[in-house]
Parts: sequence; structure tokens; C-alpha cells
Amino acid sequence: MPETIPSDSVGLVTPQRHHFTEPLALDCGRELPQYELVYETYGTLNAARSNAVLICHALSGDHHAAGYHSPQDRKPGWWETCIGPGKPIDTNRFFVVSINNLGGCKGSTGPVSLNPDTQRPYGPDFPIITVRDWVHSQARLGELLGIQQWAAVIGGSLGGMQALQWAITYPHRLRHCVVIASAPKLSAQNIAFNEVARQAIMTDLDFHAGHYYEHNVIPRQGLMLARMLGHITYLSDDSMRSKFGRELREGKLNFSFDVEFQIESYLRYQGRSFVDRFDANTYLLMTKALDYFDPASEHDHDLAAALAGVTARFLVMSFTSDWRFSSSRSKEIVRALLDSQKHVTYLDIDADDGHDAFLMPIPLYLAAFKAYMKTVADEGDELAN
Amino acid sequence: MPETIPSDSVGLVTPQRHHFTEPLALDCGRELPQYELVYETYGTLNAARSNAVLICHALSGDHHAAGYHSPQDRKPGWWETCIGPGKPIDTNRFFVVSINNLGGCKGSTGPVSLNPDTQRPYGPDFPIITVRDWVHSQARLGELLGIQQWAAVIGGSLGGMQALQWAITYPHRLRHCVVIASAPKLSAQNIAFNEVARQAIMTDLDFHAGHYYEHNVIPRQGLMLARMLGHITYLSDDSMRSKFGRELREGKLNFSFDVEFQIESYLRYQGRSFVDRFDANTYLLMTKALDYFDPASEHDHDLAAALAGVTARFLVMSFTSDWRFSSSRSKEIVRALLDSQKHVTYLDIDADDGHDAFLMPIPLYLAAFKAYMKTVADEGDELAN
Repeated sequence: MPETIPSDSVGLVTPQRHHFTEPLALDCGRELPQYELVYETYGTLNAARSNAVLICHALSGDHHAAGYHSPQDRKPGWWETCIGPGKPIDTNRFFVVSINNLGGCKGSTGPVSLNPDTQRPYGPDFPIITVRDWVHSQARLGELLGIQQWAAVIGGSLGGMQALQWAITYPHRLRHCVVIASAPKLSAQNIAFNEVARQAIMTDLDFHAGHYYEHNVIPRQGLMLARMLGHITYLSDDSMRSKFGRELREGKLNFSFDVEFQIESYLRYQGRSFVDRFDANTYLLMTKALDYFDPASEHDHDLAAALAGVTARFLVMSFTSDWRFSSSRSKEIVRALLDSQKHVTYLDIDADDGHDAFLMPIPLYLAAFKAYMKTVADEGDELAN
Repeated sequence: MPETIPSDSVGLVTPQRHHFTEPLALDCGRELPQYELVYETYGTLNAARSNAVLICHALSGDHHAAGYHSPQDRKPGWWETCIGPGKPIDTNRFFVVSINNLGGCKGSTGPVSLNPDTQRPYGPDFPIITVRDWVHSQARLGELLGIQQWAAVIGGSLGGMQALQWAITYPHRLRHCVVIASAPKLSAQNIAFNEVARQAIMTDLDFHAGHYYEHNVIPRQGLMLARMLGHITYLSDDSMRSKFGRELREGKLNFSFDVEFQIESYLRYQGRSFVDRFDANTYLLMTKALDYFDPASEHDHDLAAALAGVTARFLVMSFTSDWRFSSSRSKEIVRALLDSQKHVTYLDIDADDGHDAFLMPIPLYLAAFKAYMKTVADEGDELAN
């Protein structure tokens, strides 16, 4: 943690946990008989319960979106840029709920959890979870917290898919839907990258068909490769150029296979550090949730038809250098919303940072996001009066 | 082989081999005391030796660029599209030389060859070869064949880098330089993809620090992953969409980690079949040759200065959907040639096929290539008269 907590941080936060005992039916046809969800909240729920927003996380995210867990923490939550007093998701005004999704590895029930039927970790037997499954589980948490209607459901990337699914599945339970750097479904290329990442993990000799916990190993190399590959898709070619160029670590070629270019060093570091904080089975599940997301598929591939029942107003934002989910993918969502006569604000933000831009303090992005969220907060106040 | 050999094929061809005994000094500071090069030739060298063209291959290519090795061959050489009677590189007019590069695994001296010092395979002790090293070795083959000056040196991708290096290193030994779908150096993103591929191979438990031959294994998973990843970069998002879309192999999601989408099936097949025909140490060497190529680096990063001594006339071609080496990378070459007052013809060809387009029978591409090569052939005839 910084020597003093910045005044625009939510400060020290403590994760909460709830054990749900009502079975959850899943898209795959199986059900979870019981499960736990870990979540954090920031800010205060008003008496009218009209100021709650739900944050949905992306592939490697979790419930810890803002603040610090302890004074020893070196880093704040993953969306500290956007959540806090005076920030776009202003904790002086909103009650913010951030959840670790089912299948995750940060406390919510997932592959590392004990399967009550076997008293062994679920491992590969954990059911494949869809974005819609997540939305159902998140809806139950909302009910637990007494939130009839979210002021907004908000997410970037895979989180944006959850927000979109919320607007479709529970149209009356959210007033606003904020979808950032996302897509209405993966492209073949997106699936291809996920497949290489999965193959890297699943062909690792330490994977043991997903039962690696019982062998006291982890598929370290595979997960490292998956993360390295992911990072290439999170950055733009331009941002890589400006960050690393063709800079050589030792200033000269060494004619060996050791790390030579700065970009190699960066990727290896990212890969190695990820292995110590993320579970490989969870990574596999998250990539499948991405691959499977395609709300239009149940409507003859007509996204506008899938959105016909939506009542939430939308803020959609994309970034010009994002090639993982390019601006054109966001425009598909915007076009479908317009075609079905919905209310949508769209911003394509000029940024070099690639897909990662949604986590970055880009002034125009933060300003636009903040302006939109102010109207959402004002509306919440009006409903409370 | 097809039941009858197509009339526009060079037909049955037999690789040739030469053992070079003069040591070759390498950019890395080491030397190869002796080495063999395997090559094929198509067409007939004219008496004036003015009609020879050199074909340089890309990462996974080899000397077998056209025709068939036996009546049992199912597939012709890798550039059958462009080499043959009446084709752009017209074997009725040109004497075509195609070589397996040093470090390769199809017969030329490389990691699988016996190191004369140890009588064991070189493996990881094979020196890291640069594009310039290849050009020097190719120049010696040219001398052997009595070719004072190539009518053209031609290559796509990494092959285009060799052609470009030829024009710089041996300006008077080629009249034309044809650079297709190439780049004057890799970007940080290009290097990043190579690094993930290398890490996949080098962290495979069967890699044995490159000495896998002696353990009678190959780093199968690593090489498979490298190839899968490569294929993503060879195709465009558009071509993947039109080829595979989000098509499901069994028509429905099966909620497992088996192959589901057609693109997954394609990538796994490409990865697996590659393992049986390519050497992992060679793959590593080829990616390093790519990473290291940067002729401007010796001229204060001024490519025009690097090209100052060039006398060859250039044909540069790129493809609109190529994101591995995008059109803008070819334009860097064109710009530098123009800045140094060289003769260059440039075509950016509208094609969906991504980087692989240079291997495809795209009508405009073949027509333009053929028209240019006709003038090269005519010039060769004039010199002969």
C-alpha cells in the first residue's frame, strides 16, 4: 500500500462471503447443489436501495475491484482507476457490489473448492459455467442484499458480456447497462487464441487431466504460456512499440535463446507471476464462458431480436487500438440496440493501449464514464426522494 | 500426385545436394567448417546464364517449391501456385533455384545433422543463423551453379527478408528483387508471438534443452502449440470467419473441453501434422532469424541509408488483410527505396487470406506478378542476345 492511502481510494476493504443453499440450475444441464460467492462492497446503500451498481469482472479478475485488503498491500483492486470517491463509479454516491464469479479461484465456489459429493476438489468435474449462469448467481446475491433493481450493471471485456446478458435476462432489474471493450460473441480468431491457451494448459504433463491438486503440482508451463499469449492480445501493436519497441535488454544480440528483447522479458514475467495467483482449471472455464457467449444464437443469430425485451439504457465504449474486441464489435451491439429502438450512448475512444485500455486512466474515457454515471446517480437520488 | 500431372506443373523433380568445404563465417562470430545445401532447380539455364532466379523460403518452407517428388506425392511443392510453365515464375523462361536454408530440417545442414566435432546431432549447439548468413550461403550456391547475377531473387515473408538482404549485401548479383508480404524488421508484437512459440517448445519436458534426439523423443506438445499459434497469425480474422465462423463440429455445444468449434479442429490438425514433418530446433532458429533481421540497425535505424547501395529494381507486394506483416510494413520498404532514389513497383492487393495470401491463387496477385516477371524474363533474353 502507498504510505498513505490516496484520498480518492475506498481504502481498506474486507471481502464478504455468502453460502447459497438453493441449488442453481446451469445451462449445461447440471446443477450446483450449493455454492459460495465472495464479494466486496464499497459505498453505502441508500434507504431506497436505488444506488446499487454491480461490477462484473473479466477473465482473470475477481471481486477485489477497488481499495486495499491490508496496509501491506502493494496494489489496489483491479479497477481502482474507475471506482472510488469522485471517480466515474463514485463511491460517495453509489453502493458498489463486486463479485468473484462462480468457477473462480479467489474464494467463490470453483474447481479448487471441495466437491461435497466426493470431498475432493472439483477440479475438471466443476461444471462449465456460462455467462448466463453467472448472471443468475449474481441475481441471487442482489436478492440477498435486498436490491430489487441495480442502478447499473457494469463490466469490461467478459464483464461487459455479463452486463449485456443481465439486460437480456433480467430486463427490469437494471436501469443502466455499461458495456466496455466487449463483443456480442467471440470471433473465430478469438476462439482460436482461447483454444491455443487451453491446449497449452491441457497438454502440460502436470495437468493430470485437471486433477493436478491431488498430485501437488500445477500445470505451470501451460498456464504461463496461456497468460503470455493473452497479454499479446491485451496490448496493441502500437502500445507494444511504444513500451518495448525492439529494445534489447543488454543492448546487443547475444545469439542465444535467453531473453534478449524487452518484450520477451515482460511476457515471461507476466506469465510467471500469473501462475502463482491463478488456477488453471478456472482459466479453462473462463475461456469456455467466453467462447460460448452468443445471446443472438437463440434468436436465429439476430442480436436485435435478442435485445427486443431490453429496458435498460446503455453506455457502450470501445477503444480504437483494441484488436481483441475491436470497436467494430461494440458497434454490432450499438447497431442491434438501435435496430430494436433502445436507448444507447456510444463512445469509441482514441487510445493506444489496446484491450487493456478499459483499465487505464485515459482522460476522455474517465470523463465520459463519469459524466454518464453522474446522470445514473442523479436518477438514483430522484428515485429515493 | 494427381492422376495426371497438370500441364502447368514442373512435374517430377529431384532434389540435389552439394557439400561445401570452405568454412562459412557467421554473424554470431562462429563458423560452420563445412555444410551441405539441398536444392531443387526447375527450367533450363540459358547459355548466357541470364535467366536464373533464386527462391527464398519462409519459416516452415524448404527447397521443394514446385512439382512432385514421386508419383505417390499427394501435394506439390509449396509455391506450385507461382512456379511452373506459364506461371508468374515461368519455368519455360526461367531457370529456378530453390534452396533449403542452413539450419533447416529438410536436408541442408542444421540441428538434426551430425556435428563433425562430436559425431552427435548439433541440436541446440547449431549456431544461430541470420538472414545475412543465409544470403552468404545462397551466394555460394549461385557461384557453384555458375550464376554471376540472378535475374531475380524472390521471397515471401521471411523469404522476402532474404531477398531484401540480397539486394543490400550483393547489390550487383541480382537485377530484380521481389519482396512479398514481408517487413524490414519485426515489430514488438511479432517478436512476442515468436517468444511464446519458443517458450512453448523450450518448456516442453521432452525438449531436454534441445538434445531430444538423443532421448528418442520430440517436444511434440510445444511444437504443436507453436504451429497452432503461427496459424492464427497466418490467417486474417475475416478469412477465419469465412472459413470457420463459429461453426460447431457437432452442431451443438457439448459443455466439455473436447473440440467443439471447427476452428479448434483445424488448429489441432495443423499443429499435430506439423510435428511429424518439422524439427523443433529448426523452428527455434527460424524464429530467431526473424527476430534478428533489421538491416537498418547498422545504419542508425535509417532503412533508406541501408538501401543506399542497392542497384536491383524492386517489386514489393502486400495483402490488405495480412496482419502479421501488414501493408504498412511493406510501405516502409517502399518509402525507404523511394527515399534513396531506387526503382520500385508496389502493389497492395485486396485479399481476405491474411499473411497466407502470398501462397494463394489470387487472380490480381498472379497477374501482376506474371506481368512483372515477364519483363524480367524479356530482359534476361536481351542480355543473352
